[in-house]
Amino acid sequence: MLPFQTLIPLNKTLALPVYRQIANAISQHIKNGILKPETALPGTREMAGILDVHRKTVVAAYSELQIQGWILVTPRKGFFVAGNLPELKPREWKQEVTSGYGKQMSAPFNVLTKDRQGSIYPPNTPFRLTIDDGWPDTRLAPLDLLMREYRSLLKFKYKNPVTGTVTAGALHLREVMVDYLSETRGIKADVPHLLITHGAQMAIYIAARLTITPGANVIAGTPGYYTASQVFEHLGANLITVPVDDQGIDTDAVAAICKKHPISMLYVIPHHHHPTTVTLSPARRMHLLELSAQYNFAIIEDDYDYGFHYNSSPYLPLASGHHDGRVIYIGSFSKSLAASVRIGFLVGAEDFIQQGIYLRKLLDLKGNHLMEDALAILIKNGDMSRHLKKANKIYHARLQHLTTLLDTRLQHAVEYNIPMGGMAIWTQFKIPLKSLSAHAAKQGLYISDGSNYMVGNACRIGFASLNEQEMTEAITILASGI
Amino acid sequence: MLPFQTLIPLNKTLALPVYRQIANAISQHIKNGILKPETALPGTREMAGILDVHRKTVVAAYSELQIQGWILVTPRKGFFVAGNLPELKPREWKQEVTSGYGKQMSAPFNVLTKDRQGSIYPPNTPFRLTIDDGWPDTRLAPLDLLMREYRSLLKFKYKNPVTGTVTAGALHLREVMVDYLSETRGIKADVPHLLITHGAQMAIYIAARLTITPGANVIAGTPGYYTASQVFEHLGANLITVPVDDQGIDTDAVAAICKKHPISMLYVIPHHHHPTTVTLSPARRMHLLELSAQYNFAIIEDDYDYGFHYNSSPYLPLASGHHDGRVIYIGSFSKSLAASVRIGFLVGAEDFIQQGIYLRKLLDLKGNHLMEDALAILIKNGDMSRHLKKANKIYHARLQHLTTLLDTRLQHAVEYNIPMGGMAIWTQFKIPLKSLSAHAAKQGLYISDGSNYMVGNACRIGFASLNEQEMTEAITILASGI
Repeated sequence: MLPFQTLIPLNKTLALPVYRQIANAISQHIKNGILKPETALPGTREMAGILDVHRKTVVAAYSELQIQGWILVTPRKGFFVAGNLPELKPREWKQEVTSGYGKQMSAPFNVLTKDRQGSIYPPNTPFRLTIDDGWPDTRLAPLDLLMREYRSLLKFKYKNPVTGTVTAGALHLREVMVDYLSETRGIKADVPHLLITHGAQMAIYIAARLTITPGANVIAGTPGYYTASQVFEHLGANLITVPVDDQGIDTDAVAAICKKHPISMLYVIPHHHHPTTVTLSPARRMHLLELSAQYNFAIIEDDYDYGFHYNSSPYLPLASGHHDGRVIYIGSFSKSLAASVRIGFLVGAEDFIQQGIYLRKLLDLKGNHLMEDALAILIKNGDMSRHLKKANKIYHARLQHLTTLLDTRLQHAVEYNIPMGGMAIWTQFKIPLKSLSAHAAKQGLYISDGSNYMVGNACRIGFASLNEQEMTEAITILASGI
Repeated sequence: MLPFQTLIPLNKTLALPVYRQIANAISQHIKNGILKPETALPGTREMAGILDVHRKTVVAAYSELQIQGWILVTPRKGFFVAGNLPELKPREWKQEVTSGYGKQMSAPFNVLTKDRQGSIYPPNTPFRLTIDDGWPDTRLAPLDLLMREYRSLLKFKYKNPVTGTVTAGALHLREVMVDYLSETRGIKADVPHLLITHGAQMAIYIAARLTITPGANVIAGTPGYYTASQVFEHLGANLITVPVDDQGIDTDAVAAICKKHPISMLYVIPHHHHPTTVTLSPARRMHLLELSAQYNFAIIEDDYDYGFHYNSSPYLPLASGHHDGRVIYIGSFSKSLAASVRIGFLVGAEDFIQQGIYLRKLLDLKGNHLMEDALAILIKNGDMSRHLKKANKIYHARLQHLTTLLDTRLQHAVEYNIPMGGMAIWTQFKIPLKSLSAHAAKQGLYISDGSNYMVGNACRIGFASLNEQEMTEAITILASGI
């Protein structure tokens, strides 16, 4: 007889009832070919003795197995593994459980990258302070208000909407955004031109997937937003880069490329370029729009952190002008509110957005429509603009505080330009950033080692999420490493 | 002189300050070529008179435009549109604003589908009652608990995590799921085998993208989950369908196909097939695993509504057995909790999951890591299993209530089998479902017209989200249409 006591290990401390543990173990062994079809199982009294459980427990387990079809009960004969099950090739049973997942998948699959995924620092590494890429201070965001609306909607809007009605986003949010985009950014769009996405990244992916065919030529600035470049190359684009200087991407370089190659799409971050934070000048804005019309290519305008501009009002986006739908506009509330709020949006011509909605359905079905509704309420009653006004002042002060610290504590170690807006300073380091980053980590401070910016000895220093005391401490730690 | 009063329409009721409206309008007209480079603008006093605003307001507007670089101030000469701006081809200026988005995008883009996106019913159509596809009753879910944890985390975990550490999902949730999957589903996996996604659909997309190359042969049952088929075809797969009967997909038909064609992937919903609700029999489960090993293809096991099984314990998934990573397991908490909670997961071999994490980063960077953390707490302290136990009883009662109603009120109009679990009955209608659906809509009841199930005169009747009184009302409305 098979060693049932060892085959069916039981753990009475688990939440899972013992009869289920017994049934699961037996069905597993049948599935794995350890218990072959038509094998006789011990009677319930005998099995109860072997496993040291109550007979009732075994009766319940056998009952489950019978209902599910793994075993048969023959009156006066006993319990047998069902005969209609496939006969498996004999397998060796090892003491250790060898089922489950391991390092390698046996069947072929597509390898998209050779890079190890995840941060060089394990999650939950005890960093006291984090210098981030330029994320907002969650403590300032009106999240209490957002959550209150959300909980209220959970109570009253509990009916599940027909999925097709919310794939493009909660209608109320789209309606509110028509006015919001018009008033704050001069963008004239209606509900059919809007697609709400799970953060700006999804909007980038969708816009790229709709404008790229394998082998297509795509233009982006370098240095640039690396994850976007990864998307373009993943989709098979031939990525042609142009330099980025203090006025933004070099549109003369773009023009030169357009003369030689057919261009499908150009990706640009006009407001606060990532990573260098520069703002695209008026002349170059007009030049880009002209080129896009002349050569008929799409422009993906990534305006991920619209809203925080310090030396003047924010520039109106490219999308606010004449472009016959060629400018696909991307925005996000993650930078206005909090990184965990993953609500972004895509604005485009109606036929383009229709395709975007279809793709979004395939990727994701829909977002959290109630959170979208809650956000709509915050925008409509003015809480969002009040927050942005207040945060703008605070972030401006924090920017000035950081530049003072850089000038007084790190003046020989760094080089930077003061950004016109946004939440980060693009900082070139004159000492090895990798070792500085490692030194900082030992003292509980996270700062990028530069590898995720692909430029070398440079990174963004986000100043919005740290208050002045925290930033002082962070820069002090950096200074101690120089 | 240009008609500035008409060119610069002002609306003092808007939240946007008037000086910004003036600056925006002028910069727009410069961008669109209405105001050409080096054009002289009226002085501030004159413009204030034209626009009927305070002179200070014009001063502020001109100041903005100057800082941004759209205009230049020449002392004693006045204000001029900047000369370094491109000279645009002359454009006709129409009274109506013609910028913004319209019906068509001018630049080429990829058309993925010819179908109009969105429900046949407009969003917010006043349906009093909705017969859904089989979604949970949000009113029963422990969302108060989830929200309380979430708000608590918002306060205390406000630091933005390094993105790379949470792309695979909040670590705490992945750790908790190792035990959860083992105890409830017999799946042996560790943290490196888990990827949290934004709902099960994203997991389907990722798993499909990793197992499909254009032209690859993929097997799925028909009738089947239509959105999954759309994903496979979107990715270029050659979709081969096999019949689904009362024991699930026909694995003999699968075997016959495997003999003739190389198969990359098979998609199956073993627990409660969508749409027909049937459970895959033990014999066919073993057969599938054998075929997958023999022909070395991946199985995507979509277990979207694990947890609600009425006549026995839930069957252990295919993923719980020996499969050397070939079975990619997909699950979701949207069906356990609420449709708006978009947290799903993918389980696979480590190398496979690494690729999944990379693709997830491209699609949407990360999820709401704090909501994931909140869910982890609910699972760990037992609230989730308490909820599932309670909901299971209630849904079982609602299933019985629905079958009684179908048998007494609609007995000659419908045909169905009682499902072993899940949240919907797959119902064949003997009368035209399209007209019944239209009749119901007039009385405030939504029921699918069958078109989203692709079978004809059949649809799923979800019984979980309606209490017994609501379901009685819904079936009464349907009965009145027969």
